[in-house]
Amino acid sequence: MADDALFEFLHMEIVALVYKEQATREDIDKERVTCVSTLDAMGFRVGQGMIERFTKDCPTFKDDLDLMKFLCKDFWSTIFKKQIDNLRTNHQGTYVLQDNKFALLTQFSSGKQYLEEAPKYLAFSCGLIRGALSNLGLESVVTAEVSLMPSCKFMPNLKSLIN
Amino acid sequence: MADDALFEFLHMEIVALVYKEQATREDIDKERVTCVSTLDAMGFRVGQGMIERFTKDCPTFKDDLDLMKFLCKDFWSTIFKKQIDNLRTNHQGTYVLQDNKFALLTQFSSGKQYLEEAPKYLAFSCGLIRGALSNLGLESVVTAEVSLMPSCKFMPNLKSLIN
Repeated sequence: MADDALFEFLHMEIVALVYKEQATREDIDKERVTCVSTLDAMGFRVGQGMIERFTKDCPTFKDDLDLMKFLCKDFWSTIFKKQIDNLRTNHQGTYVLQDNKFALLTQFSSGKQYLEEAPKYLAFSCGLIRGALSNLGLESVVTAEVSLMPSCKFMPNLKSLIN
Repeated sequence: MADDALFEFLHMEIVALVYKEQATREDIDKERVTCVSTLDAMGFRVGQGMIERFTKDCPTFKDDLDLMKFLCKDFWSTIFKKQIDNLRTNHQGTYVLQDNKFALLTQFSSGKQYLEEAPKYLAFSCGLIRGALSNLGLESVVTAEVSLMPSCKFMPNLKSLIN
């Protein structure tokens, strides 16, 4: 219990730091894009590192759906202490990973009040997925969507396949 | 195992970010002090948050030595996955917590090669201890010392006592 909190607190500090650093600079216009991409890049490197440890003794994956299932179960559980609740795909490289109670959003009150703050708290995790996929040979673009907190959807779109 | 890695990777990213942000600024002179204090402040807030969760259902502590033992065992184990190896005190408010294999330094080669990089990787943890102590009613100054990686000493100096 206190264990999960460490990651959540650290994540909060990172978001706060990135936004604070940017706020003291002059190029306020670019602020939002830069902050999100800084957080995404941090997530990317952490995702790469994590998946390397994870898959060290793993058999290879049958296909990209198989790999995505692994991300939704093992990878997600270790980081966010629960599995992804729902995985969908159009079988053409687009996936939708739905987490009904996303750990990094549970601190917010549910409802729409803080909805516009949500992207700040999803950027790191988008990078995390992108980094993990990248180290497994899949280039992707990952976006996220929130309609009602603390539920959210991550949508990795694979640009190339392993095979 | 992959669990601990998450904290270690995140910590690396934070250190890198703080130093990168500072490097792009003009006041290079103040660089070292500012970076260390930014990291210390982040650690402080995380330490406060963590200890709150931890001591929610705890009995109160007998004295400050009792409290320090708790930090060395329970608190340290949750965060760094091992206990402090040695705790010493002069019974006048100065403590020395020695960790012979400090998690955030194990990535470095042992020996003296990277010794001057060490303070970067200790600042957050100094703040962590200071934050935890602060929420338990003890104001302190925490310094750290490394002579041979990955071993290091944290030295909280208590300014006031609970009683």
